[in-house]
Amino acid sequence: MKLISRINVGLKNNFHVAQSMKVLVTGGAGFIGSHLVDLLVERGDEVTIFDNMSSGRAEFFAHHGENIQFVEGDLLDLAAVKAAMPGTDLVFHLAANPDIRLGTRVTDTDLKQGTIATYNVLESMRCADVKNIAFASSSVVYGEASEMPTPETYGPLFPISLYGASKLGSEALITSWVGTFGLKAWLFRFANIVGARGTHGVIFDFIHKLKADPTRLEVLGNGRQEKSYMEVIDCARAMVHLTESTNDQVNCFNLGTHDTCSVRRIAEIVVEETGFENVSIEYTGGDRGWAGDVPKTMLDPSALFDQGFTPNYDSEGAIRHTASTLIQEIGLP
Amino acid sequence: MKLISRINVGLKNNFHVAQSMKVLVTGGAGFIGSHLVDLLVERGDEVTIFDNMSSGRAEFFAHHGENIQFVEGDLLDLAAVKAAMPGTDLVFHLAANPDIRLGTRVTDTDLKQGTIATYNVLESMRCADVKNIAFASSSVVYGEASEMPTPETYGPLFPISLYGASKLGSEALITSWVGTFGLKAWLFRFANIVGARGTHGVIFDFIHKLKADPTRLEVLGNGRQEKSYMEVIDCARAMVHLTESTNDQVNCFNLGTHDTCSVRRIAEIVVEETGFENVSIEYTGGDRGWAGDVPKTMLDPSALFDQGFTPNYDSEGAIRHTASTLIQEIGLP
Repeated sequence: MKLISRINVGLKNNFHVAQSMKVLVTGGAGFIGSHLVDLLVERGDEVTIFDNMSSGRAEFFAHHGENIQFVEGDLLDLAAVKAAMPGTDLVFHLAANPDIRLGTRVTDTDLKQGTIATYNVLESMRCADVKNIAFASSSVVYGEASEMPTPETYGPLFPISLYGASKLGSEALITSWVGTFGLKAWLFRFANIVGARGTHGVIFDFIHKLKADPTRLEVLGNGRQEKSYMEVIDCARAMVHLTESTNDQVNCFNLGTHDTCSVRRIAEIVVEETGFENVSIEYTGGDRGWAGDVPKTMLDPSALFDQGFTPNYDSEGAIRHTASTLIQEIGLP
Repeated sequence: MKLISRINVGLKNNFHVAQSMKVLVTGGAGFIGSHLVDLLVERGDEVTIFDNMSSGRAEFFAHHGENIQFVEGDLLDLAAVKAAMPGTDLVFHLAANPDIRLGTRVTDTDLKQGTIATYNVLESMRCADVKNIAFASSSVVYGEASEMPTPETYGPLFPISLYGASKLGSEALITSWVGTFGLKAWLFRFANIVGARGTHGVIFDFIHKLKADPTRLEVLGNGRQEKSYMEVIDCARAMVHLTESTNDQVNCFNLGTHDTCSVRRIAEIVVEETGFENVSIEYTGGDRGWAGDVPKTMLDPSALFDQGFTPNYDSEGAIRHTASTLIQEIGLP
């Protein structure tokens, strides 16, 4: 990563660094987005965060001070998105509903915060003649794939969660904008991303459950669900790496590790990292945690690795590192 | 096809035919939908058409009299869709923006009339506990496929038109409803469908151009665009056949013929069928008719054929039959 020394100015359109890129990060105050912002600022980009703060947090980007722009806005407010867009070189579109399970209760959550939000981003890009977008998609677009490890060319794509439908719907909107209006796009299909600043997900849930009751841990499903995990800074590094090293009209990559970790193993690791003893791990049963949960995902990350990228953590390493980090962030009695 | 003699009543929920299926056809007043309605009525189903009459026509279903129910409503009116749903056994969801090119001018057309409309159908089904949906998808979900003939398992799916994005977005919503709420679904990826009652498309356009000026025919692109065509009654027959003969949770089929026809050949056939002589066929040039047009599609229909279905027309036969039929419908000087 090149480091460019920068003059802190804090005034929009008044940066003095030659050839720095102007980047807009939707969801930039959130879990993954804030780590990406850290890397982009380090690279010397002019970074604007666009976030509705529904799950983003000011402390995730406060350390950048006036080095970045922050726009508090909602992607469903098309005028606000349009206002933030002019002059942007590259949009990292990461904002979305982070809670997959919510889709089963309020069924238009992902349609709005996923698909329609992506439409608003693309339409704003078209109006402002912004040509590059990198999108946080997900391995859930593969649904219950019959081929594992699953490569990017896998089909058919039958997502089984409403969240997955919004990710595939967003991908499709993006490739249609490429084909119709000449955009360039990066589609990143994330494994389960874990790490510091996590605000949801299985490790986060387990720690909170153990904080409430250190004697037992209830696990949704039979614990045999098995997925690919990637550490969040590895994920952010991979996004930056791929937008620098690939340049097709559509660049689609799985972002993950070569292995998987079971929920049962995650429960054991989290318990180990808490230091609690004699914890009773109890399974609710069934092959999946909730309706729309994919019991097993194993991504083929070889296209990413072929671009010269190596993650610092494998799945189990990412889990253990995350458990240790989140226990510090959340705090235990 | 079984024929069941029916008593004409015309009162909702007051049909006296044993074991007839209650079917809702969105877009049932349109080009493809009205042919499907003909077959469903012939089979003895209780048919309700739900159509906003934006491109549907009363004369396409008037011959059924009080044998069918007609609801004039818009799929973007969720309350209206919900009101039409109770008691339905199977939804044929065919309504959509029929004009692919419109998407490049009014960019939320397909998002609304495709993706969001499909969401409203699915949500209404969930609320009324309706469990079966058959959806008119399209070969455009394949984008510019590298594999031809293209099978249903092809990936990655990168549609290049906004219409294609709405079809893939709708498919994804449907499979997510299957995975989350236990629906059963048929996804029909249509070739270019042509035939009687056509209200748009290349043959329709050519005839209208020749009606206006019988001396010349302007063709968008270089005429080398080459696609699979299917005659509309073949298409409707295939939908009925597959919903009767397949029964997986997701049943995805290409609906097309084994061959293709070029736009150049279509122009020649249409001119032949008009009987006009010395027509100058002029090409605007370029490898596609408009931004988002896929220059070549060739579907693999073998999964359909393996289910025991045979179309009456191949691509060129469908074109010639359609040209002859539409010339009669449109009328020439």
